This record gives sequence, C-alpha cells and structure tokens, in this order.
Amino acid sequence: MQEWLTEHLTKLNLVDEMNYDTGFTRLSYSEEEKQAHETFRHIALSLGLEVHQDEAGNQWATWKVDDKVPTVAVGSHVDTVRSGGGYDGVAGVLAGLASIKLLKDRDFIPSKNITVICFASEESARFGVSTIGSKALTGLLEDNLAEVKDSDGVSVREALESYGLTWENLPNAELRADELESFLELHIEQGTQIEDHGADIGVVRGVACPIRLQVTFSGMANHTGTTPMDKRSDAFVASAPLIPFVEEEAKKMNEDAPLPLVATVSTVQLSPNVMNVIPGEVTLGIDIRSVEDELKIELAKRIKSFCEEIERERSVTVTIKTLVDNDSVFLDPNIQETLANVAKQLDYKPLAMDSGAGHDVMNMATRWPSGLIFIPCQEGISHHPKEYASIEDLEKGTRMIAEYLRIETGDEHENNNWRNRTA
Amino acid sequence: MQEWLTEHLTKLNLVDEMNYDTGFTRLSYSEEEKQAHETFRHIALSLGLEVHQDEAGNQWATWKVDDKVPTVAVGSHVDTVRSGGGYDGVAGVLAGLASIKLLKDRDFIPSKNITVICFASEESARFGVSTIGSKALTGLLEDNLAEVKDSDGVSVREALESYGLTWENLPNAELRADELESFLELHIEQGTQIEDHGADIGVVRGVACPIRLQVTFSGMANHTGTTPMDKRSDAFVASAPLIPFVEEEAKKMNEDAPLPLVATVSTVQLSPNVMNVIPGEVTLGIDIRSVEDELKIELAKRIKSFCEEIERERSVTVTIKTLVDNDSVFLDPNIQETLANVAKQLDYKPLAMDSGAGHDVMNMATRWPSGLIFIPCQEGISHHPKEYASIEDLEKGTRMIAEYLRIETGDEHENNNWRNRTA
Repeated sequence: MQEWLTEHLTKLNLVDEMNYDTGFTRLSYSEEEKQAHETFRHIALSLGLEVHQDEAGNQWATWKVDDKVPTVAVGSHVDTVRSGGGYDGVAGVLAGLASIKLLKDRDFIPSKNITVICFASEESARFGVSTIGSKALTGLLEDNLAEVKDSDGVSVREALESYGLTWENLPNAELRADELESFLELHIEQGTQIEDHGADIGVVRGVACPIRLQVTFSGMANHTGTTPMDKRSDAFVASAPLIPFVEEEAKKMNEDAPLPLVATVSTVQLSPNVMNVIPGEVTLGIDIRSVEDELKIELAKRIKSFCEEIERERSVTVTIKTLVDNDSVFLDPNIQETLANVAKQLDYKPLAMDSGAGHDVMNMATRWPSGLIFIPCQEGISHHPKEYASIEDLEKGTRMIAEYLRIETGDEHENNNWRNRTA
Repeated sequence: MQEWLTEHLTKLNLVDEMNYDTGFTRLSYSEEEKQAHETFRHIALSLGLEVHQDEAGNQWATWKVDDKVPTVAVGSHVDTVRSGGGYDGVAGVLAGLASIKLLKDRDFIPSKNITVICFASEESARFGVSTIGSKALTGLLEDNLAEVKDSDGVSVREALESYGLTWENLPNAELRADELESFLELHIEQGTQIEDHGADIGVVRGVACPIRLQVTFSGMANHTGTTPMDKRSDAFVASAPLIPFVEEEAKKMNEDAPLPLVATVSTVQLSPNVMNVIPGEVTLGIDIRSVEDELKIELAKRIKSFCEEIERERSVTVTIKTLVDNDSVFLDPNIQETLANVAKQLDYKPLAMDSGAGHDVMNMATRWPSGLIFIPCQEGISHHPKEYASIEDLEKGTRMIAEYLRIETGDEHENNNWRNRTA
C-alpha cells in the first residue's frame, strides 16, 4: 500500500519525485489542473472504475453496481495555490483511489455504487473564488462568477471555455439530493491540533466559515513634507490601533469561549501609497472564524464599537462593509460516529475537532450527509512548498476510508466475512 | 498683467479654461509634457526670446545681451503628477515669462542675459525619480536611472528616446558653474504657512530633504483559519505600533525643536496580502523631513530603538534600510535678503520660511547661488485637481521676479531711471 501511495502521489503531482523547494502550481482551470485530472482518470481506469467528467470539470471515477442502488461518494481536489504543496487536495483524491484499490484487492463486493470525485477548482488563488466544482454540484455558484477575472484579466467564463467546458452547460453539473447518498472528504489538517493532542486522525465536527469585514478609514491625503504634524488627518495612523485590537480581542474571547475563535487583519490597501503623500485612505480586510457563529458575530460587534471610538477621537471617517458572513457548517453526526469507531477499530487515536479552513465538503454538506477526515501535516505548514504529510499517515487515511466504505456499502454478510478475514 | 497671466496659465495647461475636477496629467517625458514645453517655446518666441532645448529636454528661453556677460536664470517645471493641479510648476514658469514681459513693457535694458528655464520631468509620479531635468544640469543624476521603469515597464531611457532625446547625450546637459550666475524659482507653497502668518510671499531659507527608511517586519505566514491565536507570528500586528509611534514622536520633538520636523509612515507592502493568510511580511516606508538634519537623524535613531524593542517582545525580525538620506539644502542668504527687500518695496509682507517639499532649486543650489519664492495656494492643497492659486498672487510673484531681475541684471543708471518711473 505505501509503495502504491508513494508512486501515485508523485503521479497526481505530475512529477517523478516530490519536491519541497519550488512546490506545485496547478491553478483553477489551468492546463496543469487539467493534466492532474487526466492522471486521475488514468489511475481510475487502471483500477477498473468508470470515469466521466461533468459540466463543471469535476472528474468522477465510479465502482458501479447498478443504477438502482445509492451512490456513496468520497473525494477532494488536485488544484493548488501558486507554489503550493503536493498534499492539499491530492491527499484526499489519492486516499480515495487507494481505498478502492484496497477494497478490490480484498475482493470486497459493494452493494452500493462507490464514486471518487476529483473536484475542479477548489483553491481561490486564481480567481479569489473557492470550491467552484463542488459549488456547481450543489447549486451554490456565485451569480457574478462568469465575469470574475484573474490577475491577467482572464474571466472564469473564458478559463472554463479554454479548459474545454461550455459556460452555458455549467448549471447542469448540479445534482439532485437523491443522486448521492453521502459524501466523505479526506484532507491534510493544515494545523497542528492532531499532533498537539497526540492523536492519529482528526474527525471533523464543523467547518468554520468566515465573517469577512472590509474597514475603510478616510482621512486627508497631503504632502508629507509641507503638512505640519498638527494639521494632519493620517488615515494609516488612525487605523493602526485596530490591527493589534483584533488579535488581542480574539485572544481574550478564547479565554472563556467553549470553542476557539481566530481573527486576522490580513489585507491592507493604502491610498495613494507613495512616499511623499500622507495616507488619505486605508482599507483593512479582517477574517474572523469560529465554528461557533455567535463568537464571530460578537467580535464583529466589538470591532465596530472600536472603530466608532476611533472615529470620535480622530478626524477620520470609518466605514465597515461585510464582505462575507457564512454560517458555519456542521457535519453529519452519524458519519462522525462511524469514523470514530472505524479509527478505534484500526487502533488509530481519533480527535474530534473543527476545521478552521473551508473545503469542498462544506458545500456537499448542504445537500448530503457528509464527513471530513484530517490527517496530520508537518508543523501545520500548508499552501507552501514545504507542506508534507507522511506516507504512513496517508496509509492511515486510506484505511479509514476503506473501512468506512465497507461499512457504508457492504451488506451484512459481506461485512462479517471481511471483518473475520482481516481480524 | 492679470489678463495675460490668466490667458497663459490656461495655455501652459493645454486647455481653454482651468478645470478643478479632473485636474491635469502631464507625466515625465510624456506627450503631454512635450506639448506643454512646445507651448512654453511659443510664448517665449512671442516675447522675443531665443529658445533652445538641451540634452535633458529642459527648455531655455533667453533674453540675450551677449556671450560675454553672465546669465541670471529663473524657472520651474510644467510636468504634473497624475490628476494633479494646474499651478505646481506652471506657476513658476508662467511668472518667469510674465516677469520678462513686464520688464520689456517697461523698456528695461538688462546688462546680463536673463533666461527662463522650463525644467523637464520634475515630478516623481511616473518613475519614482524626481527633478531629472535639474539633476542633469548639475551632474546629480542617479547611476541606475536608465533602467528605472514606470508602472507599464517603460524605462527612463526608453521614455527619453520616445521624447526625441538621445540617452547617450544626456550627460552633455550638465553646465559648468560659470555658465550661470544665479537661479531663482517661484513655486506654490503646498502648505498654509504664508496664510497662517498673514503674509503675502514666502522667502525660502532651506529645503528640507528627506531621510527615507524602509522597515521590514518578518513573521510567519500561515492559514488564518487553522492557526490558533497563540501560535501566530503576525508581522502586521507586530508592525502596527510603529505607525502611531512615528507621528507621536515627531510631535514630541516639535515641542522643543527650533525648526519643525515632519515624519510619516506613508507606504505599506503586505505579503501575501490575501484574506485567508496571516501576514508573513510587512514593509513600511517612512519619510522624515526637517531643514535641521540633526532632528531627522535623531528621529531615525528613535525609530530604530523602537523596532529593536518590537523585535525583543515579539517573534519577528525587523530590518531597517535607509533608502534616502539627503542633507537639507540652504539657499543663498544674499538672494533671500534681496527678495525680502523687494517684497517690502512692493508692499508685500514677506515670510522667511522653509520648504518641506523638494524642488528643482535644491539641485540648482548645489552649483549656483539660488533662491525660492513661495506664493500661497488655497488651503495648502496640492497634487490634487483642487489645487488653486489666485491670479492676484501670481501677479505678486511676477512682480517679485521682475524687480529681483531688475536689481540683479540692471546697471545702476537703468535701475535708478526705472525706479523713478515706477515710483
């Protein structure tokens, strides 16, 4: 199994050997994403699966029983950020395929269809829009998506057409609720909670979706050399206290809160941002996340009050725009229970945890009972060439999925047979 | 005189009527700057002056006596920032030409050559490099100038060649010290000191040249959603206290200092500056100015200490790079005295003051005795479409230059004759 994982990890990353220096760049709907999808199809065919691509570019590799039985899905994505790692997304696709191989090697006979989905365009690195493939499946695509452009001015519509898809057919990718029974994703943790708790596997309860605020401070631009210190309305100076405030307030709230909250001032635009002009306008972007939506709302309120204070004390105006306010997504309790039991059965220590990052599963969970498995990644480093997950952990993830699929798709007789054989 | 000024103010701005909404854009070595230089030549020719363009694109309009007598120069520039005003630069060129007209109308006969210089490329808006024309005259051009590029990737060398100049000939624009006797610039104040003191005209003593620092804070970029608050090394949070520190410290130093000091955190670059990543690196640009160089050096020291404190207290590294450290330029005391006397004689209240902004005169002063006259501009607004100076103040400036030129270039006999006539 480890040999197979090692070989196909490099294949899905389109290389002969993993690299941890320059990383991998397979942006949304790029030629590189397409090549990785093509590799996925080849591997799936070699495993005897039926493959097809849907109208959003998602690849489906199906172990088909017949059209009358339900379909259980697993999967993730193979696109990356710029100079990203070789595990974010790939780990889930690889473990999904490997679990099929494991079941087939054991002569398992499923009583339901099993499908591995390789989602298109999960990362927001190219267009600022994430999880396009799984949004298409669940009818969650943004209204203005066609015209959203990358930094070269190429729109999503144009990128999709270059990819060989037809923009007008995109809505046809949406599936009815009865077309799948459930969905399970495996992903690298992109944090260190599993390691910190001495666990092997994370079983995710909820995905923390963000509140994102855009806070604009308007002062008065003027010449840095000719404007005396007591005649200024410097928007950057006025905005500065908000930057540590967000960090400090989030830390304070974590002292009493039942669930963690994270908050970051992660972007800034300064106008005009030239050496000889006092900043006239500053826009800060704030990302607030918690599975506990009330905590996000409370921090957003405190930020608003703090900005009103700044407005009273300094000669600036402050406007706050809510860019995103998505309720957190809770995953299926039955699947969590199954996964925890599977882990124990395999002698892996599971950790019930939340996901601070978004994944395709958060869209899938709006339509189907869904689950998310995390495997550890070294030092929590992700979206970086040094991103790394061990083959041992990839194998544990694979065995988790295989056992889960066996339970979900086997009939009693088969289950018992196999359990006896593997015991 | 006011009619002539009004008419030629619009001409030099290449319009039929001044506009205060969209402003003017005549970037360095652009087609628009060229057109304004062409207009300058036409006006100069209509005043009976000899015109020529030098190797840097500076235009010279000369009231020539002969080659044996010294040449007294006045002038400024006609290029602008993006969406700038119609007075920054133009005011000095216009008043220079108008003063010639005034002297000619009065049948003044100069005993020295008088030349009006329309400098090329004063503003740094296009290339980030200022006063290229006057630097060329005084041998102060930056070594790497050829390769400096604008935001479209056009280098100074390419822009200069498109302008019709020859890059290799640029050094030939430099003048020997004996080729001019003195230089006087008139410029809008870009501040409100003249108004605040109830004066009519500013007579500038020194030009405050900046110390510019680039301070980089390096922390650790990581996912905003998956990195707990107590495991972060957020470079933006670490850098934030420096922003108000610079303002507060400059204010404190002004309480005891003999001369004003101004300091501004005017630029920021955040990396990666995307919503879902904790800022891993922040670079702040700081502009410090005072005619008193010791004050600039002292503030730069305090900034360094403060950054060392941040480095000790937080898990970031801080590096400070000095981008610019130019000594302030002091203007010629004799010219200042002459200008103050001229003002009193014309019944204008002069204000001895310093310039917080750089001008062509700061380069000219390194080679020739030089002076700088400020006229008021409304509310100190500059580099903005709303920039405005009244025709009355432009006329005062013109009369200041004319009287100064009469004193500097007239022989005793002429002087006395005219003084009697105008008394």
